[in-house]
Amino acid sequence: MVEKIIELLEKENFKELKLLLSEANEADIAECLDELDKNKQAVVFRLLKKDEAADIFARMDPDTQENLIETLSDNEIASIVSKMYIDDAVDLIDELPANLVTRVLNNSSETKRKAINEMLKYPEDSAGSIMTTEYSSLEEDTTVEEAFNRIRKRGLTKETIYTIYITDKARYLVGVVSAKDLLLAEPQTKMSEIMEENVISVNTNEDKEEVAKMFDKYDFLAIPVVDSETRLVGIVTIDDAIDVMSEENEEDFEKMAAMAPSEEDYMKESVFSQYRNRIVWLLVLMLSSIVTGKIITSYENAFAAVPILVSFIPMIMDTGGNCGSQASTMVIRALATDEVETRDVLKVWWKEIRIAMLVGGTLAIVNGVRIFLQYHDLSLAIVIGITLFFTAMLAKSLGCLLPILAKSLKLDPAYMASPMITTMVDACSLVIFFNIALLLMNI
Amino acid sequence: MVEKIIELLEKENFKELKLLLSEANEADIAECLDELDKNKQAVVFRLLKKDEAADIFARMDPDTQENLIETLSDNEIASIVSKMYIDDAVDLIDELPANLVTRVLNNSSETKRKAINEMLKYPEDSAGSIMTTEYSSLEEDTTVEEAFNRIRKRGLTKETIYTIYITDKARYLVGVVSAKDLLLAEPQTKMSEIMEENVISVNTNEDKEEVAKMFDKYDFLAIPVVDSETRLVGIVTIDDAIDVMSEENEEDFEKMAAMAPSEEDYMKESVFSQYRNRIVWLLVLMLSSIVTGKIITSYENAFAAVPILVSFIPMIMDTGGNCGSQASTMVIRALATDEVETRDVLKVWWKEIRIAMLVGGTLAIVNGVRIFLQYHDLSLAIVIGITLFFTAMLAKSLGCLLPILAKSLKLDPAYMASPMITTMVDACSLVIFFNIALLLMNI
Repeated sequence: MVEKIIELLEKENFKELKLLLSEANEADIAECLDELDKNKQAVVFRLLKKDEAADIFARMDPDTQENLIETLSDNEIASIVSKMYIDDAVDLIDELPANLVTRVLNNSSETKRKAINEMLKYPEDSAGSIMTTEYSSLEEDTTVEEAFNRIRKRGLTKETIYTIYITDKARYLVGVVSAKDLLLAEPQTKMSEIMEENVISVNTNEDKEEVAKMFDKYDFLAIPVVDSETRLVGIVTIDDAIDVMSEENEEDFEKMAAMAPSEEDYMKESVFSQYRNRIVWLLVLMLSSIVTGKIITSYENAFAAVPILVSFIPMIMDTGGNCGSQASTMVIRALATDEVETRDVLKVWWKEIRIAMLVGGTLAIVNGVRIFLQYHDLSLAIVIGITLFFTAMLAKSLGCLLPILAKSLKLDPAYMASPMITTMVDACSLVIFFNIALLLMNI
Repeated sequence: MVEKIIELLEKENFKELKLLLSEANEADIAECLDELDKNKQAVVFRLLKKDEAADIFARMDPDTQENLIETLSDNEIASIVSKMYIDDAVDLIDELPANLVTRVLNNSSETKRKAINEMLKYPEDSAGSIMTTEYSSLEEDTTVEEAFNRIRKRGLTKETIYTIYITDKARYLVGVVSAKDLLLAEPQTKMSEIMEENVISVNTNEDKEEVAKMFDKYDFLAIPVVDSETRLVGIVTIDDAIDVMSEENEEDFEKMAAMAPSEEDYMKESVFSQYRNRIVWLLVLMLSSIVTGKIITSYENAFAAVPILVSFIPMIMDTGGNCGSQASTMVIRALATDEVETRDVLKVWWKEIRIAMLVGGTLAIVNGVRIFLQYHDLSLAIVIGITLFFTAMLAKSLGCLLPILAKSLKLDPAYMASPMITTMVDACSLVIFFNIALLLMNI
């Protein structure tokens, strides 16, 4: 579609371009705008239908939004902001540089500005920070007929009308009615008769990750957010919950590969910023390699006497690292999805011990046989076999215990992933290796 | 809540237990049932409200479902199955052992059985396999008033009434109307006047992962599924899309830690099955360690002359592995989210080369200085510094190129993660290390 847009732009065929844009989906148009040059973006944006422009604007990348805010007139900005949902407007403000923030706020209505400022007060990872203050709420004694009339009148400016929240006079949340219930009820029925009273809600300070998990568990389309006095203040909708889920997943992948998590996309983040995210952990992990190096030095006699031992260092280190990262990945994920709790530590350990015995046993036998056939040296085969078995036991144990330990110390288990485990297992497995060699090979 | 249920069960206070169950959320009850003993499960299940039982049943773990199917009478099974949505019934059938499948199908109505069998024909990872055939569809010339009447009559048995699909006489999909549009329109308006005509739909054979991505992009609540002749055959709802997203993520985590992906939860999967998922890759990766071992042996002279060289093997291997897994994780994720395509290979490589120069440079300087201060040996410091620099370059290059290569060969890039990269980088970095040492240290 981008090619088509550029072609029409070059031909200055604005009429057909306008038609193309009016038929396309908002998300697709936003994606195209992100790919255009800065000056083309403004031209295309001005051709959009007025009532779709705000929605498309909200879906664009922060960079594109910034470009447009710089280019558009005050009137145009005012028109977009007035049609944007509060939560999208807050996201925009969060990403813009300070001078453009002022520009956006100056072109917002008094009420919008107040609402935006209110939302910006919530802590970064809280339910409050991802909620919208635009929702449908009705009072208990409203009838179905009145409800329809009210929704018809106000409905278009609400982000979701699929769930209607029922409050009492003091704005305390007392029930929910789904659009489905509303459609199926008789016109004179009161909300209090059809509402579900056991409402599941979250506090504004609840962690946004926990909120996202609730969507997965309960299959909700929206969750109401209440303040500390259980007064309804907003809702979190499922599209924002999905965004939180994918963000958290990306962050876990990054942490588990020894990187500082980043909110930027890979291709958009600068080389220097990526360097900064990666170098810290590399230096930290390198420190522990120094310990491993020291350990090897202290066994200099062993490999001076039997030089072939050195050639098994990579295999023992890699196998230990791989065994450990398998266990740590499983446990980190199980902790993230609440399948495993810190109190399950012994159950998990016992499970990994049994897996380690099977895995270690197999590796020991396969390699023992291979080495005996290759070198015709039984003691070497036994040394490597025993080392592999104990390395597997150790790696799987550290792999499952360290993430749980991290969690119980209120640290993020994701940092106890593959790179950390590998570096720790290395040192220990080499100690095992050289000691078994010294013991069995008469060095 | 489980404790409370067990307490009430032991006191045989069924009245209060019934009250507790009637007030709780379905998802919470399902979770509690999963935690109870087999015989308690049936007791509690029989106390549930009839109209909630099927929904709760659909949310339980496969094990619990199996236990209950074994215990319940034919009549009870028939009652549950008749109230279950088709897609949930298909999921149930998928998980049950053959003898229980027959029992469930024998207790289903003729139409339900036919619908289930129809659904089971779709390929495992296709849109068809996760869709439901229960949706609201209306014809073009239906008026808003008629629409409301029809929904009131049939609405309760439809999984979602929030989006209504508009078809022509031949069941071709021609438009969609949201419940919102319906609520806001005048009673005599025809569907053809308010429907959105540019409907985004998917084919039954579309990969379910691609379908899930569309939910993220377009913020839909449901996507219509059409057959090869674009006739409407079902819809995929957002709750199923979220399940697909989390499943795919879990699988990626597993693949990236060198494990065969598994659909079972960590705590529920048997030790032997976990062993099987883990051992294959460990053995494959071990093969390549043999190569690395061979390489070391061929440089025996080098470390016989300068034994201290051996003590740097772990640091060089670990740093190479960590550098590589950072790059591969970023690229694998970017490929998974379609942010990077195979044709971007040169752009990505150039980016990683620049990051590698910064990272490698920093590591080289920090370590060079550290080694010089510790050993007062300038040539050793230079050898390690240069080796680290080139190892970083090599690791980042392999880390970004191999996942893209895998993708262009139609293999899953996730397998080119940390363990695979680490093992490959090891061999190459040791060749670099010993050659630079031989060159600069006059061995």
